[in-house]
Amino acid sequence: MTTAPHPFSRVRIIGTGLLGTSVALGLREQSVEVDLEDSSPSRLRLAEDYGAGKSADASTPAPDLVVVATPPDVTASVVTDALSRFPDAVVIDVASVKKNIASAVSSGDGRFIPTHPMAGRERGGPTAARVDLFTGRPWVVCADSAESRGVRALVESLGAVVVQMSPEEHDRAVALLSHAPQAISSAVAAELGDAEASWMNLAGQGVRDVTRIAGSDPELWAQIFEGNSDFVADRIESISRRLDALSAALRDVENPGARTAVHEALQAGKDGVSSLPGKHGSAERYSTLIVVIDDRPGQLAALLTAVGELGVNLEDMSLEHSPGAPVGFVELSVAHDSADALREGLEAQGWRISGDSG
Amino acid sequence: MTTAPHPFSRVRIIGTGLLGTSVALGLREQSVEVDLEDSSPSRLRLAEDYGAGKSADASTPAPDLVVVATPPDVTASVVTDALSRFPDAVVIDVASVKKNIASAVSSGDGRFIPTHPMAGRERGGPTAARVDLFTGRPWVVCADSAESRGVRALVESLGAVVVQMSPEEHDRAVALLSHAPQAISSAVAAELGDAEASWMNLAGQGVRDVTRIAGSDPELWAQIFEGNSDFVADRIESISRRLDALSAALRDVENPGARTAVHEALQAGKDGVSSLPGKHGSAERYSTLIVVIDDRPGQLAALLTAVGELGVNLEDMSLEHSPGAPVGFVELSVAHDSADALREGLEAQGWRISGDSG
Repeated sequence: MTTAPHPFSRVRIIGTGLLGTSVALGLREQSVEVDLEDSSPSRLRLAEDYGAGKSADASTPAPDLVVVATPPDVTASVVTDALSRFPDAVVIDVASVKKNIASAVSSGDGRFIPTHPMAGRERGGPTAARVDLFTGRPWVVCADSAESRGVRALVESLGAVVVQMSPEEHDRAVALLSHAPQAISSAVAAELGDAEASWMNLAGQGVRDVTRIAGSDPELWAQIFEGNSDFVADRIESISRRLDALSAALRDVENPGARTAVHEALQAGKDGVSSLPGKHGSAERYSTLIVVIDDRPGQLAALLTAVGELGVNLEDMSLEHSPGAPVGFVELSVAHDSADALREGLEAQGWRISGDSG
Repeated sequence: MTTAPHPFSRVRIIGTGLLGTSVALGLREQSVEVDLEDSSPSRLRLAEDYGAGKSADASTPAPDLVVVATPPDVTASVVTDALSRFPDAVVIDVASVKKNIASAVSSGDGRFIPTHPMAGRERGGPTAARVDLFTGRPWVVCADSAESRGVRALVESLGAVVVQMSPEEHDRAVALLSHAPQAISSAVAAELGDAEASWMNLAGQGVRDVTRIAGSDPELWAQIFEGNSDFVADRIESISRRLDALSAALRDVENPGARTAVHEALQAGKDGVSSLPGKHGSAERYSTLIVVIDDRPGQLAALLTAVGELGVNLEDMSLEHSPGAPVGFVELSVAHDSADALREGLEAQGWRISGDSG
């Protein structure tokens, strides 16, 4: 949290779902006056009870910032309305698609700043709201104007990381990095309906990772896809063309050119994943160690305590379960130069190592 | 490990890579005589030094089991050769594709049992071998004959879980559950090459999960795909057709039928992923809680210790890093009826909760 004076002293939140209420809680913690509106009186009362601010009425003073956190299909009209109701206020929205909203909102003299906090994967009412919802998450701000300076300070005061891009750039980026992966995960998962039940014991961590986000809310994602339909379709078609080229090569695998095509398709994927930043991404960035643990409470904590006591900084970890035995597999990722010490230290304490990246 | 007498008293391992040497180590631990062969003298010496058994020569007694653990492209001919060299031995292979090898091996009077241990994701030499490599992992055995009974006992003695299916059924199952997800993950990851560097801060856990296995070894996977080319192509084409239907709907999103098609594509994915067994799969099976931790050594262990002390059994967990702030996000999955106690207990101790599935 910033210690500088907050750029806005009175904020109107329109829409008290997960995002709107979480913004409100973060502002209340900074002693900003927060007034709430919602088309649902019961949700509004819930947000008020939750400490998010006061229900606004005709006598409530005008805000200097309006946060529109309504469902995406009404966001543009609510923003337009807010710009006219509060002629001196800056207005932001928090919808997950930006270009169509930015185009639909007429002027506002630069007072409308489209934004997108990349947090809150699932829908939820005010009671799902958390003051820490935005902590450490990217929050796209689609403007670089004088008006947007206060918005950026607001975003930072909520613990989020400002990313600046245009509405169109945002929509192209999330099509690539979020919407298309969701569509592909769903398509792979839909195939699992064809599987015989006995096959499922062969499902390893790979297919689980690829299909995990297919468990997301179809209603929410259908709305997101519709709001970004052309950029999402562009990506899906590009991926589909890659798959068609690969299957054509596999149908003619004795052809020498086919082997090159298969190899290149896999290599392009390996190159692409290495461009993901941070602690994840390419397996080559870290050494990995797979430890077998008994599948009972406390084992994971004991293992991680042992890792900590060996003075090794864990870069990443994942947990996998055996399909038929009461054991779990913990994959630990550490810096290359810590790997030998970690393996030897854990083995000396009797931990069972089932593999490492060498 | 079983305490019954081991079904084989003398085993010949042909190919001392990761799999062959790991089998050898597991057998040595059970005091089985293990003789080793490898086309590479230096790898053979390494495996011997590693305690995997003795290098075989002309005077070595014949084995009652041969384990062929060579690269897949030579497996069928090595198996055929072993069946003729050791006319009283049972012969198994451990290659990851089964139908083409089973068809290529001529008879053997039922002495050849195709198998596939689902362990050891990466290639590696003998020094990557682990006695616990197979612990808790599925191991497909493609026979139900008298000869296969000893093989099943062997597999169980190595800690693995026997799954019985025919070679063709195996290949269809792994095309669906392993090979096609690998191909799709690579195709999505290959798209990331188009991204501008500034977009990458928007990459969340979803795209990371979908593309994680794209970091695998292209050389190894090209061989696997080629060995199972038709079943893999079948799946890839089916997924590509799903994607084409989805992009067609997105190109015509104002058409009322298009919205239904988009929603159904997402719902089919949600239904499919719920068929994955075990502790993972559908997000609805467990309640999830996202805890924000400082990104420094010991925090994860401290959190998991706190979870353990609250008496809550952790069903799953994953770790995510912030793109721009020194914090991490730990997603804890627990049984629905433990979720409230866990959230309240952690909050009381000052842990920062950034979200939960409600």
